[in-house]
Amino acid sequence: MSFSRLVRFIAKNGRTYYGDAILPEGVSDSSLAKKAFVISGDVFSDYIVTNEVQEIGQLLSPLSFSDIQTVRLLGMNYRKHAIEINTPIPKYPVLFYKPKTAITGPFDSVKVPIIAQEAPGKIDYEVELVIVIGREGRNIPIDKASEYILGYTIGNDVSQRTWQIEKGGSQFSTGKMFDTWAPIGPAIVSTNLIQSPNELDLISKVNGELRQSSNTKDMIFSVFELVSFLSQGTTLRPGDLIFTGTPQGVGMGFKPAKWLKDGDITSFYIENIGRIENKFIFENKERAKI
Amino acid sequence: MSFSRLVRFIAKNGRTYYGDAILPEGVSDSSLAKKAFVISGDVFSDYIVTNEVQEIGQLLSPLSFSDIQTVRLLGMNYRKHAIEINTPIPKYPVLFYKPKTAITGPFDSVKVPIIAQEAPGKIDYEVELVIVIGREGRNIPIDKASEYILGYTIGNDVSQRTWQIEKGGSQFSTGKMFDTWAPIGPAIVSTNLIQSPNELDLISKVNGELRQSSNTKDMIFSVFELVSFLSQGTTLRPGDLIFTGTPQGVGMGFKPAKWLKDGDITSFYIENIGRIENKFIFENKERAKI
Repeated sequence: MSFSRLVRFIAKNGRTYYGDAILPEGVSDSSLAKKAFVISGDVFSDYIVTNEVQEIGQLLSPLSFSDIQTVRLLGMNYRKHAIEINTPIPKYPVLFYKPKTAITGPFDSVKVPIIAQEAPGKIDYEVELVIVIGREGRNIPIDKASEYILGYTIGNDVSQRTWQIEKGGSQFSTGKMFDTWAPIGPAIVSTNLIQSPNELDLISKVNGELRQSSNTKDMIFSVFELVSFLSQGTTLRPGDLIFTGTPQGVGMGFKPAKWLKDGDITSFYIENIGRIENKFIFENKERAKI
Repeated sequence: MSFSRLVRFIAKNGRTYYGDAILPEGVSDSSLAKKAFVISGDVFSDYIVTNEVQEIGQLLSPLSFSDIQTVRLLGMNYRKHAIEINTPIPKYPVLFYKPKTAITGPFDSVKVPIIAQEAPGKIDYEVELVIVIGREGRNIPIDKASEYILGYTIGNDVSQRTWQIEKGGSQFSTGKMFDTWAPIGPAIVSTNLIQSPNELDLISKVNGELRQSSNTKDMIFSVFELVSFLSQGTTLRPGDLIFTGTPQGVGMGFKPAKWLKDGDITSFYIENIGRIENKFIFENKERAKI
């Protein structure tokens, strides 16, 4: 039997497990799982969902650090977001990366380092559907893309706009690179449960205030098109993550802009996946110049 | 005893080893090593250079796939190169990434996929000094940077200029991402042998014709400045690679431009490290539209 909602968690007994989340009847938010069936083996190939049930103490990033490979992200992949930031609709996917050291858990704090506070610190959030690759492939046709996907999760492509746009020499990388700047979770929901990834509502809130509210059908390049494109001449591997871009409503899109401040909490929801919530902690506040 | 010139190789006995290259008296090009002392253990921490000598059959990428972590690269980091491509001297390092699937050996072929041939296929070479991180660090001061470096090697940041510049939505990533588009080697030369990484001659040739001839002192941001910058708020890890940018003389810099063709051979040299040589093979030539 294959998993439905893959979680990784510290159990009440103190040990860390992969598990298949157990949800109450009628609930589809994996962050509400109190228990999970323990999974043993390699979650990409040869695993068993056992009958052993453990109580979830703390949800972790749904893949372990060693199981995560390359972290790819797409820019300007929602029509209304491209409009809000005054960018032409891209003709091809706009690819960038984060180092995997940026990945953190669904309820972990995001650490804002000094370099991202100075600049000035235009700290922003981006709710995104994240594709998790489950099988190695190269030159994958669009109509076969789903076979290479393990499942879907929620991600926050935390961004510092000064470094991303003004000081990075046109490359987004520096404004996106910091430790903990890519929370993901709460679960990797199987392609059996999400067969149409481009029909999902997604929402972001900051301190409870609604900011982004859209649907993945507004994507310019669909989930399956992205997997195919990114695999051209390039081997995608189990544990690769693809952040598929964010819809309109980021802090940068407001007039005046709404940047994140020390202590702010972002809450993201995607239909059929669940919720992640992250508090922003500015490091060494006394040195910050905001 | 620590290694001087770390190589990874298939020995004449068919097995793969890490080793410390044995060079003839007066020779500093590690690609000329015929033998090596076998290294056992973890090359980042707890290893031994043994007395066992093996004959080198084939030099491989000097780190194994599993030992390589994040691959960072810098753009426009040589003054004369910035001038040749009509770009202002950057005020801050210009960071981008390749997936580690791009890494290949010092004498392996570079595969040019169809997507990089169509476009049209402006295939280009870039000789670069590559920093290999040996120790975990975050917020590393410039004057401590050398302590975090395992050594230096040569890299080719193979680039497809249409995807890099025109079709990538301002991001370099797609034009750089393909499998085998980052040959490295022949050895990782220890910081004991290279104490001044910003005083090294570097050269590239295509089919024997000199193209790039410079010195790492022309870098805008020095090796130690780059390590410090890239570690701000970001954990660098053993096995991270940093390609430090390329000097003037790339194919794009000539008028008319000199793009690589099927069968072309690039040969790169860096003082005190050695030589890498890579043949460019266009995949499925009959489909190419160049």
